[in-house]
Amino acid sequence: MKREQVMKEIEKIGKEVETEINKGQNPHLEIPVRTLSNIEFDKDKKQLTLGERKSKRSFMNVAHTRKFMQTLMVGSFCHDLLREDLHTSLRDMYYALKRTIPGTKDNTFEEQSESDPCVIDLETMGDFLREEMHLNADVRGRVVGNVVIKDRGDTVNWAKLGSGGWSIPSNVEEIELKTVEADYIFVVEKNAAFERMHEDKFWREQNCILVTSQGQAARGVRRLVNRLSTEHNLPVIIFTDADAYGWYIYSVLKWGSMNLAHVSNRLGTPNAKYVGLTMSDINNYDLHNYTIKATEMDMKRAKELSQYPWFQKPEWQKELELMIKMKKKAELEALSSKGLKFMTKEYLPAKIERKEFLP
Amino acid sequence: MKREQVMKEIEKIGKEVETEINKGQNPHLEIPVRTLSNIEFDKDKKQLTLGERKSKRSFMNVAHTRKFMQTLMVGSFCHDLLREDLHTSLRDMYYALKRTIPGTKDNTFEEQSESDPCVIDLETMGDFLREEMHLNADVRGRVVGNVVIKDRGDTVNWAKLGSGGWSIPSNVEEIELKTVEADYIFVVEKNAAFERMHEDKFWREQNCILVTSQGQAARGVRRLVNRLSTEHNLPVIIFTDADAYGWYIYSVLKWGSMNLAHVSNRLGTPNAKYVGLTMSDINNYDLHNYTIKATEMDMKRAKELSQYPWFQKPEWQKELELMIKMKKKAELEALSSKGLKFMTKEYLPAKIERKEFLP
Repeated sequence: MKREQVMKEIEKIGKEVETEINKGQNPHLEIPVRTLSNIEFDKDKKQLTLGERKSKRSFMNVAHTRKFMQTLMVGSFCHDLLREDLHTSLRDMYYALKRTIPGTKDNTFEEQSESDPCVIDLETMGDFLREEMHLNADVRGRVVGNVVIKDRGDTVNWAKLGSGGWSIPSNVEEIELKTVEADYIFVVEKNAAFERMHEDKFWREQNCILVTSQGQAARGVRRLVNRLSTEHNLPVIIFTDADAYGWYIYSVLKWGSMNLAHVSNRLGTPNAKYVGLTMSDINNYDLHNYTIKATEMDMKRAKELSQYPWFQKPEWQKELELMIKMKKKAELEALSSKGLKFMTKEYLPAKIERKEFLP
Repeated sequence: MKREQVMKEIEKIGKEVETEINKGQNPHLEIPVRTLSNIEFDKDKKQLTLGERKSKRSFMNVAHTRKFMQTLMVGSFCHDLLREDLHTSLRDMYYALKRTIPGTKDNTFEEQSESDPCVIDLETMGDFLREEMHLNADVRGRVVGNVVIKDRGDTVNWAKLGSGGWSIPSNVEEIELKTVEADYIFVVEKNAAFERMHEDKFWREQNCILVTSQGQAARGVRRLVNRLSTEHNLPVIIFTDADAYGWYIYSVLKWGSMNLAHVSNRLGTPNAKYVGLTMSDINNYDLHNYTIKATEMDMKRAKELSQYPWFQKPEWQKELELMIKMKKKAELEALSSKGLKFMTKEYLPAKIERKEFLP
């Protein structure tokens, strides 16, 4: 969405409130419900989505008054950001809006945990991303590949950035993807593996765009992968540790996350496939001496994953059963026991060639 | 140090062992002691340094045998890395070296916590950095500014990388600093502040190189700041939260850290100055409504800092006393309460102009 459009959407919310006040009515906001009971897995779209239920937040209800005021303050702040064309973080916004209400001892906000949910409320009401309201998210992740972008007037070639690669910013909405020459996008959880793959010219040999999420993917990474994949029709391959945490990273990149179900269509990438590490790899590549005992938390999370509707596929159920039975997990680095280039020159090219993916 | 030199240093260690074996002697290594008792604060160099004490690790001492073997294995592995010109991570090295010793049930290494210290042992014995042995460290941090570098054959201009900036890699040893046009280096702890400063063209207006450490500075950031500062004779200004954690980030960037005291000269930057946030700022800029109550851990760490020899300066003692008295801390983002551009257009330029720094 363009800046002017987002501004108009915010204005619309404000004008509806104004109209109610002018009519002497109790002003209110209608906000889509984001609790688990209103989150659905859409089998056609292959995404977590929000249902239809909405809740009312009205000014004249004492239980709502504070939140009502806070939501309008956040809306107004974001409108200012857009008008002045500035970007900032959730934390800065909290400080910028915190003040003592004249004539009282009450602060507008006491904790950032009060202002953050207002942002998601506005995101769901207006159907835009918080990045489109110029609120930046946490930042993590880097990328290399045959891609040229335009960003703030600079032309940046991701193929010519030395060992560092391009830092994925928190907000990739305004980046122009000028030329994208690649057969697919490869996302690896860990930066150490990214550096080895970069050094071994994996992305040149495979003609792919190589991304590391550096742990759970931040919104910038998710949105960038989504944009590259949808705007340039590129398949996505994901590579994480064989543990519940790694597989959840895959889950979020592909299907979206529960707390951001309202924007799965722009942060998720339903066509993504999983290349490894799998529990079967431990058997197939004889990595038994390089596994780690699963903790109780690992086991609990593996059991949770096995219940999610989007993991109800025979291939994943088999892997999750193996994990629960073996009580083990394995890291990407376990492949280094076969030699430092085994991952980049044998394991990955062979699996990709054979299309040995989990869905 | 050049690759060939590091290889020779490692070979020297191996050859001394070989000579002892050939003479029928008990082979041993001499390793500088790294415990607190052997760490000194060098007032002239303004750096934490290692003292002269060394310990012997010999093969025929049962208490040493395993560690002796491990140290040689790590040395041999790094020699291979250098010969093949490959880089990897500590975690990968651990997996690559872990195996069952033939004829026994013992593994060479059981945990990464066994292989990591061998790397530091070799660093101290050979007086090189682990990055010079091609072992990459954790990666964090980004940079923008009027600097052109050459890295793996690519020429990268840090002024033309859009909103993302250049990802500082874990290993900056082999980067050529081609042209550096800046008056000073500015390091900010938090990425959110970096993004605001970048957007407001702070580094262009100030003609500085803008770096974010994204929390405690990783070795790559420390080494890059050290190289820029020493090779191009640039002052360094540091900007963190007003809390013990932020001030420790400053301490490590400037004077070095205790566990890496043997390489302070290459990771520390003794000429660095501290611009903020200070406890005095809370009074001077009336930020009282935007402070955070210090936790018990914060108080404990503040008291520890106040005892360190390198914080025995009146300016720092005054700040630490204020912190301990007020039982408060403040984040960079507190400045946003004065408006989003207050930090970039008023607070920082004014303090820098007046040279209002802590030593």
